[in-house]
Amino acid sequence: MRDFLPQDVRRRAYAIAIVEDVYRRYGFQPLETPALENIETLTGKYGEEGNQLIFKVLRRGEHASSGEADLALRYDLTVPLARVVAEHRGTLPKFFKRYQIQPVWRADRPARGRFREFFQCDVDAIGSRSLVVEAELCAAASDVLHRLGFPDFVMRVNHRRVLSGLLGAAGVAPELEAPALVALDKLDKVGAEGVGRELAGRGVAPETAERLLAAFTGELTLERARSLLVGRADALSGVSELDELMALAAATSAGAHLRFDASLARGLSYYTGTIMEAAVPDLAGSLGGGGRYDGLIGMFLGEPVPACGFSLGLERILVLMGERQLFPGDVDRPPADLLVTLFEGEDPAEALRFACDLRGQGLRVEVYPEADKLGKQFKYAASAGIPLVAVIGADERARGMVTIKDLRTGQQTLTAREEAARLLTAASPSVGRDLVRSSDSTR
Amino acid sequence: MRDFLPQDVRRRAYAIAIVEDVYRRYGFQPLETPALENIETLTGKYGEEGNQLIFKVLRRGEHASSGEADLALRYDLTVPLARVVAEHRGTLPKFFKRYQIQPVWRADRPARGRFREFFQCDVDAIGSRSLVVEAELCAAASDVLHRLGFPDFVMRVNHRRVLSGLLGAAGVAPELEAPALVALDKLDKVGAEGVGRELAGRGVAPETAERLLAAFTGELTLERARSLLVGRADALSGVSELDELMALAAATSAGAHLRFDASLARGLSYYTGTIMEAAVPDLAGSLGGGGRYDGLIGMFLGEPVPACGFSLGLERILVLMGERQLFPGDVDRPPADLLVTLFEGEDPAEALRFACDLRGQGLRVEVYPEADKLGKQFKYAASAGIPLVAVIGADERARGMVTIKDLRTGQQTLTAREEAARLLTAASPSVGRDLVRSSDSTR
Repeated sequence: MRDFLPQDVRRRAYAIAIVEDVYRRYGFQPLETPALENIETLTGKYGEEGNQLIFKVLRRGEHASSGEADLALRYDLTVPLARVVAEHRGTLPKFFKRYQIQPVWRADRPARGRFREFFQCDVDAIGSRSLVVEAELCAAASDVLHRLGFPDFVMRVNHRRVLSGLLGAAGVAPELEAPALVALDKLDKVGAEGVGRELAGRGVAPETAERLLAAFTGELTLERARSLLVGRADALSGVSELDELMALAAATSAGAHLRFDASLARGLSYYTGTIMEAAVPDLAGSLGGGGRYDGLIGMFLGEPVPACGFSLGLERILVLMGERQLFPGDVDRPPADLLVTLFEGEDPAEALRFACDLRGQGLRVEVYPEADKLGKQFKYAASAGIPLVAVIGADERARGMVTIKDLRTGQQTLTAREEAARLLTAASPSVGRDLVRSSDSTR
Repeated sequence: MRDFLPQDVRRRAYAIAIVEDVYRRYGFQPLETPALENIETLTGKYGEEGNQLIFKVLRRGEHASSGEADLALRYDLTVPLARVVAEHRGTLPKFFKRYQIQPVWRADRPARGRFREFFQCDVDAIGSRSLVVEAELCAAASDVLHRLGFPDFVMRVNHRRVLSGLLGAAGVAPELEAPALVALDKLDKVGAEGVGRELAGRGVAPETAERLLAAFTGELTLERARSLLVGRADALSGVSELDELMALAAATSAGAHLRFDASLARGLSYYTGTIMEAAVPDLAGSLGGGGRYDGLIGMFLGEPVPACGFSLGLERILVLMGERQLFPGDVDRPPADLLVTLFEGEDPAEALRFACDLRGQGLRVEVYPEADKLGKQFKYAASAGIPLVAVIGADERARGMVTIKDLRTGQQTLTAREEAARLLTAASPSVGRDLVRSSDSTR
């Protein structure tokens, strides 16, 4: 788990603001859920491995000493969404489109780029089986990745029913389908040989495993998949859906990025239809992924509600943005536009009044808190990157003036104090920026 | 614990954006810390009652079955700050001014306006003993409360050394000082009689309790306090500090709001100097409070580091803003500016292309995801509050046009599709607002 120091927070906020802006343009609305859920809400939703990574919170009160847990920390943003939809079904719109950007927690062994607390940026559309939903999600994720600076991403798509059909066609028994998918999902990471071993370990016969790997590692186009799946109606409807998705996405910014990839499996067990995953060449693993999960909400509500979503891996995206130097320079701007100095013997009230006047006009002003040598105060401003320093010496005080020194140019300007704000904002266009914040900004 | 639906998130974001904007103008920088801290970091910092309210997280792995806890959920934002300052001392500026707006968790019995997960908005200045720090914190909190719409708040101030001196002058033995403070802190809630009972229960002699209550419930001015404290140098230096704070604050927006109140105690044990608390007449309890705590960071660092902070109670502020109707109307704006309809038999790709074009120009556009009766789609837009609906019927399609209907006026406009964005943004100034988000916005 990490502390985010000011520069980290600003960089994260920069990326998040872009994600939010794009999602809002698609009509998605913000949702936030509590960090803690009842433990039963989370267990049984993430598979066996997931279950063991859930952080559990001790029951309090009279049962505190029992060592029993009744709450658990949010593990992802999809299950809480399903709970919310089930709970608030009556008040939510027929098509509920929400985005959610919050931390989740997993009791994983920490590693490079893997943290036990990390943010997810999820966007989900509830209430429709139409492939317009998938196309819009691909388009929204595509717009985000373009705006963040990743025009080179590829969005691989597949379909759970196609996968299932291909497994069947290769001779995998239905009860071995789920474990075979878990094994296949690691093709990227462990290669064909590793997957072969894992398939054997999970009870898939050697010749079946071989057929499977041959199908999945070769050039398997959508047309070729269709011919392998003849007679499997369910799987063929999946192929048609992928065809339709490709055609719809072609009308959006996602079109040029989509590729059918029969080996894309996605680990989570709750997907029921299309699945997708975005990646760039300079990062192993994905920048985000998602899919259709028409069964999950029904686990809470009792009746099925169609749903489809996409989750961006913010932490990886931020690492890569740093490596590719995609943060604009002003994200790392200094803590203040101006430092007001304080002299020994000076009445600090005068400095405070001046600072407050400037702040009232939108400037970001720091007051050096204690009387100190002027040189030390200038040095403090320089080391913090504060570009301007205000000095109200004895002479300035008597005349209601102030001297402003620009540390970047060395230039000094003597001015009336009530003129200073106008002068400062005129002199430097970055000074006083961001005065008006969006009232729609989230968190 | 609560779910925040879209309107809730927007209202919270509106208030938080104002808090952030004000704090930035004072040169405070954003910090974020993880939700989970090592359990030893938190225990022993909040007094006995606080300790019991900490949510504890079960150890995982081989010790999972022991029922032992090794992590705990953040209880406030001050102790994590102290840990961060101790850990990052070398890289932080000499005067570290940070704001932090994050949830904290307390295993309290939930009640009206009291939640187990709630946000705190903290602002702290590390590294200086100067009262300029206190004055700036009062001014910043004052600016926030003014901008949120609470010009009628009162900021009560007191000083731990003054309190301590007054307790001593009334005859409270040094070892009973802490429990007596805890009792006095409840004067607001339980009245003089209740405090009297609690003082007796904590071992304060009846005549001492009586003297104490007489001193604290009467009109105790700073001058009167000074006369009661003659001969108590420590306490008198506290009186002088309050004098100085009043003089400094008079130069800021806080000046008119400050009142000395000898009965203000603040529950937390880590305060060492000035303490302050802001309240309004229509809310029992406070809108926020804070004070100087020069010893806390030393508990982590081994050497004392002066510090002073102020924490706003966001949840109460939001409740009161709702009651006083302080949220501007556009905080509750609809999820989209425009709904694009979909017809049976129409190629949805055309609707998607049109929607994506508009989004690229900053408009917020929702696409009705499935072909449906036009009346149902208009009804959907109306119930979601979406003001404009776009229809691309057979005739419009053939001519590259679109019909835009304004549901507020009933007016219909036929226009070329590539002209639509210009027309829409010109027609409604709120359409396409918030296109550019501040790159400095937080979370």
